[in-house]
Amino acid sequence: MPARGDHDARRRDVSAAVWRVLAAHGFDGLTLRAVATEMGSSTGLLTHYFPNKRALVAYALDLAEERTLEGRIKPSGRGLAALRELLADIVPISDVAVEMNRVWVSSWDAALADADLGERETRRYERFRTLRLRPFVEEAVELGELPADTDADDVATMLAAFAHGLVVQVLFDPDRYPPERQLALLDRMLTALSA
Amino acid sequence: MPARGDHDARRRDVSAAVWRVLAAHGFDGLTLRAVATEMGSSTGLLTHYFPNKRALVAYALDLAEERTLEGRIKPSGRGLAALRELLADIVPISDVAVEMNRVWVSSWDAALADADLGERETRRYERFRTLRLRPFVEEAVELGELPADTDADDVATMLAAFAHGLVVQVLFDPDRYPPERQLALLDRMLTALSA
Repeated sequence: MPARGDHDARRRDVSAAVWRVLAAHGFDGLTLRAVATEMGSSTGLLTHYFPNKRALVAYALDLAEERTLEGRIKPSGRGLAALRELLADIVPISDVAVEMNRVWVSSWDAALADADLGERETRRYERFRTLRLRPFVEEAVELGELPADTDADDVATMLAAFAHGLVVQVLFDPDRYPPERQLALLDRMLTALSA
Repeated sequence: MPARGDHDARRRDVSAAVWRVLAAHGFDGLTLRAVATEMGSSTGLLTHYFPNKRALVAYALDLAEERTLEGRIKPSGRGLAALRELLADIVPISDVAVEMNRVWVSSWDAALADADLGERETRRYERFRTLRLRPFVEEAVELGELPADTDADDVATMLAAFAHGLVVQVLFDPDRYPPERQLALLDRMLTALSA
């Protein structure tokens, strides 16, 4: 029986290889063969972890979720300032954020094609809106930064929509949207909502 | 040599089968085998059209573009009213729009994984912002519906971002976003920008 340390080290190797494949080629390029090549191992060894393509895709989604949670910031500001921090941390203004977004955007194809994986993405969106964004929308209303009749769910949806739609445009045209322009657009959006 | 009519009829059959596969399974499920099954033909016959997976993906993107152009509306209103018509025609408030969006969102994985296909999506986005949206943003400024110092490129980007980010949330959670709520969010967005 292998030592626990060996098992964990192997798992880290597999995760690192899966992530490199995702960052470079998206879910479209995620195959046992590509992961094996990254690890310098055989596909046979990997079938122990991933009996089929779906298991590999599900693992990759877990990994993306894990890395997203690890990298999550805790806003230092309140209300709109906190929302700005949260959204600035999402849009692709750094190499890490480009890689993360590239993985998430490419995951939508696989998630839309599979009821269970799709349900998981649905719940993830829900948590993002209601647990990450909405509390700060409500705080912004309390602070008088947003109109008193603001529907917090609507504004959370609009901010999530704006951020993710901007992500897609930036991934396809990074030269047109350098970090300072992305942040200026984010400010413009928050200002518009507060009017 | 087959008659021209036969050739066109066969091409229509292939296109219809590719579209049914895309609408049901996205680019993730787009394989020669799946298209052949839809057509009740052999994969051997299809390799005449598509020598490899990339040729099939490129064809599918052409087809999506063609159907998008065919379905395009000409706004009857001006300024913000025209922008509302254009965006209401994009968001998934009808079965046809759900299908079209499902195909486009799933195409991003393949397009991000291939430099040429990615470049095509970049240009498509550019045309959407500058040829479809921006003229009406500029008209809205002229009509006094948007502030005189509005940056038309920024607003076109924000509207494209909002619409496409909303599309993704709706595809994963259609029950939460019935058509009337999508349109209300769109109105809220246009109102916010005009303040």
